Amino acid sequence: MNKWYDATGKNGGIIISSRVRLARNLNAYRFLDRMDAEQQQELNRAVTDKLMELNLGENKLEFIWTDQLTDDQKKSLVERHLASPDFIRRGNNVLALSEDNSISIMVNEEDHLRIQVIVPGFDLEKAYETANQCDDFLNEGFEYAFDEHLGYLTTCMTNLGTGLRASVMMHLPALEAAGALGSIINTVSKLGLTIRGTFGEGSNAYGAVYQISNQITLGISEEQAIENLKNVVNQILYSENEARKSLQARNSLALEDRVYRSYGILKYVRSITAEELYKLLSDVRMGVSMGILPGVQLETLNHLLANCGESTLRISESEEGEAPLVCSRRRAELVRAALEK
Amino acid sequence: MNKWYDATGKNGGIIISSRVRLARNLNAYRFLDRMDAEQQQELNRAVTDKLMELNLGENKLEFIWTDQLTDDQKKSLVERHLASPDFIRRGNNVLALSEDNSISIMVNEEDHLRIQVIVPGFDLEKAYETANQCDDFLNEGFEYAFDEHLGYLTTCMTNLGTGLRASVMMHLPALEAAGALGSIINTVSKLGLTIRGTFGEGSNAYGAVYQISNQITLGISEEQAIENLKNVVNQILYSENEARKSLQARNSLALEDRVYRSYGILKYVRSITAEELYKLLSDVRMGVSMGILPGVQLETLNHLLANCGESTLRISESEEGEAPLVCSRRRAELVRAALEK
Repeated sequence: MNKWYDATGKNGGIIISSRVRLARNLNAYRFLDRMDAEQQQELNRAVTDKLMELNLGENKLEFIWTDQLTDDQKKSLVERHLASPDFIRRGNNVLALSEDNSISIMVNEEDHLRIQVIVPGFDLEKAYETANQCDDFLNEGFEYAFDEHLGYLTTCMTNLGTGLRASVMMHLPALEAAGALGSIINTVSKLGLTIRGTFGEGSNAYGAVYQISNQITLGISEEQAIENLKNVVNQILYSENEARKSLQARNSLALEDRVYRSYGILKYVRSITAEELYKLLSDVRMGVSMGILPGVQLETLNHLLANCGESTLRISESEEGEAPLVCSRRRAELVRAALEK
Repeated sequence: MNKWYDATGKNGGIIISSRVRLARNLNAYRFLDRMDAEQQQELNRAVTDKLMELNLGENKLEFIWTDQLTDDQKKSLVERHLASPDFIRRGNNVLALSEDNSISIMVNEEDHLRIQVIVPGFDLEKAYETANQCDDFLNEGFEYAFDEHLGYLTTCMTNLGTGLRASVMMHLPALEAAGALGSIINTVSKLGLTIRGTFGEGSNAYGAVYQISNQITLGISEEQAIENLKNVVNQILYSENEARKSLQARNSLALEDRVYRSYGILKYVRSITAEELYKLLSDVRMGVSMGILPGVQLETLNHLLANCGESTLRISESEEGEAPLVCSRRRAELVRAALEK
């Protein structure tokens, strides 16, 4: 079965993925900071037992007991956005992961349940629909902690109400180059949304990939939260397209040159860091989605974005604790092989 | 007929070309700074008439009257090392150029005659032999200004004696990277030789291509001067090869990566300056000659080194005075086409 990132969805040139995450807690258990290890294990087993009955068609759930993982396997889950750093740090918990990596249900994260669905391209409805399906299925088995006035009760106040966090991963190289992101971040935060770099540390966004997500969960319906996010994403999408047109109009040769140089390096590179890879993939993705560089599939670029993290590369050949240098070589091999296809 | 640079000679991986130049003056004419324009023209005609009888087999001489050239055509001759800047600046003179661009005889440069022969690779004997052939042929027609004690009389003291300047164009990226060139330049100058960058301005040597030439012309035979140069070049050749081995031993992945990245950029580049081209060609040449990058011919790299100058690119499509930007685009096209073969 293909992974979700081996496909491209609506507006796939600019929008890499859409994600919906629901935070839920079960009435029959105390909140996580008041449970002991044994109670957590009980919850792990109860949810796992229930999820085994979930019918996802050809897609199957795999249950990953985090305490059985090596350090690199844990970090790889975070790198691929399949588990949160907090979930990994806590331990004593289980991740239900669908074979296509689209659905990941964390049991015993900050809340009892974190249901997360990622889909390629701009398709929050699809992500929400699948998350809802899992949510309803689990709700059949367990009564949720729910208050008529407040909505879903969560460990952290910021999730209270809908317990929903929806986000879209966007590639915004032209807005970034135009220096327009600062004012967009400002505007967006006034609308109750957040933008931040997806790769890289601190304020650095490697490869111009940004995640836009909703912040408000209280006093709003799940559908309304998603609708708000969609509207803003559509506006940013429009601005990015305009910025690309103006980049091309100003100096199409320079743009073409940048795209092809980055492509040329990736075709032949022998050693590359993740940071540089994201930067070069950014140029190539822009080139592909603008029609400058035909013959390269967006799926190939999505695949590389998802699989070139340090830990993910290490576990792919099960050599624990290898030096970054070896990873850089392996990353280069993966890139060349992917672009060879 | 192929140009001389469309072939590769002995030690062609490191030695791009060998050159011999003879300075001669004719007894029947005053030295150049004492001739008027009419006398110069007379000399131009006399030498041209004589050279028309020179039999070079399939190779033919073309006579280029510099005053009929456009600025770009003039500069292109200098870029391709077929005429000296001084020759072009003087004007009112003629260049006899063989079809393969290997033989160029300047009439009315600083001396009445400058016979220059370039051959690919490390082959000073071949260059000297051909230069001698032209020299003997011209000497049949004209008596040379010659002093029994001093040798050939020349306008500038630095050529007095043999009138011979022999030089070798070497690619020395590993010695350059090791910071070893400073001490080599020092040592070599003590032996009466000079090293300087072939491309680039001032002390910058673009693409690690250096020209090593003899300085001493007095109190030495032509053969001895060439022998001295050969010995020194052989030593530098040995050092460069050692430096390459140590580069490879220290970090073969980094070396391979550098070579392939430069190759990847050149394969796909859309716009490139001469300076950057020489830099990237340097990596590729080292990779080819070290067996890291198979499938690329050294001839291809020689061809690009010879034909990617600003003026040469402009005259190739006879558009005078084009912007450097257009040249950068055209240079990129030429590079891609050459590497496509």
